[in-house]
Amino acid sequence: MKLPAPITELIDQFEGLPGIGHKTASRLAFYMLNIPQERLNRFATALSELKTKTNRCSRCFNLTDTPQCSICTDPARDNSLLCIVEEVLDLVGIEQTRKYNGRYHVLYGRIDPLNNMGPDDILIPQLMKRLAQESEDIKEIIIATNPTMEGETTAMYLKKIIDEYAANHTLTIKISRLAYGLPMGASIEFADYGTLGRSFENRNSY
Amino acid sequence: MKLPAPITELIDQFEGLPGIGHKTASRLAFYMLNIPQERLNRFATALSELKTKTNRCSRCFNLTDTPQCSICTDPARDNSLLCIVEEVLDLVGIEQTRKYNGRYHVLYGRIDPLNNMGPDDILIPQLMKRLAQESEDIKEIIIATNPTMEGETTAMYLKKIIDEYAANHTLTIKISRLAYGLPMGASIEFADYGTLGRSFENRNSY
Repeated sequence: MKLPAPITELIDQFEGLPGIGHKTASRLAFYMLNIPQERLNRFATALSELKTKTNRCSRCFNLTDTPQCSICTDPARDNSLLCIVEEVLDLVGIEQTRKYNGRYHVLYGRIDPLNNMGPDDILIPQLMKRLAQESEDIKEIIIATNPTMEGETTAMYLKKIIDEYAANHTLTIKISRLAYGLPMGASIEFADYGTLGRSFENRNSY
Repeated sequence: MKLPAPITELIDQFEGLPGIGHKTASRLAFYMLNIPQERLNRFATALSELKTKTNRCSRCFNLTDTPQCSICTDPARDNSLLCIVEEVLDLVGIEQTRKYNGRYHVLYGRIDPLNNMGPDDILIPQLMKRLAQESEDIKEIIIATNPTMEGETTAMYLKKIIDEYAANHTLTIKISRLAYGLPMGASIEFADYGTLGRSFENRNSY
């Protein structure tokens, strides 16, 4: 049976989302048939206004619906700490830990030579411009890129250019990297070699 | 951190869908930020037009974007067979088997006394009206309600009123029910008692 066009269209749209297959998309589309038109309209408005009403913070490039994001405009935040992340969702994750009270810089990507992504294809130039304006306040930069090949490459590149910048301007900027080791609740037996190796290299006195 | 309002609004909308939790909803909303505005608008239109452009077939109540559905308007379908299902998705599932070439009737629910759903709260009156118009053609009615307490109740009720109708109009209408037994690929060891019991009761000569 050919389903009515409005339903197949919605199934197609849901199917285009990550992690949603044809069966889930169908179930969602048929579910939508039973919810009030008013809620469908609200969902539709949320979708079409998502990007038009959201922009990047002029300072840290976090997402915001105001010129600067809620972190940059918060006077209680520590200006001497700057945390560099790959994506906004990384920032959201770090915020949820409530362990960090400094500022952020979002790169929107990583250096990935295999996919033709160089330092100028992500927001590294904007980071250096920002350093030129704020570097007198900054005491420590925390590089929080992912523990992947590309994240490590990006971290190494960032360390190099920030060290150069600090040397040229006779500044002392501490550069740190997130700790890598066994995740909480994991068992040593099932840890992969890379993680277990890191947790030995970076062991702490106790 | 407080996420921008347009993002939290979309997360809320996704979270309202069945089987989508907060984490998946966030991931979907952030994914949406990276797709072209044109695709967002198409998704939004699909949502708001879903119900306005879809209606129920005037004959079998299947969903359609034309006055009668593609099954009812198909002249190659067998008018002597009528299959009664609870929901449109049941019909879609049966169609995918390609084992059935008759017509359908969608009840949009089941008799469920605990939730105050009686015969007149689902499309049983419409079924009886249709029988009055088409019963001379109909040779067999296949009751394809779910093998649940409510589905069984509905099936028993349907059998009773269809038998009465046939007797009153001196018609011979065969009433059948889908076979219940072991699902294909299942193992007897892990089958539940109800299913295994049914598969014994309804065993076939071999």
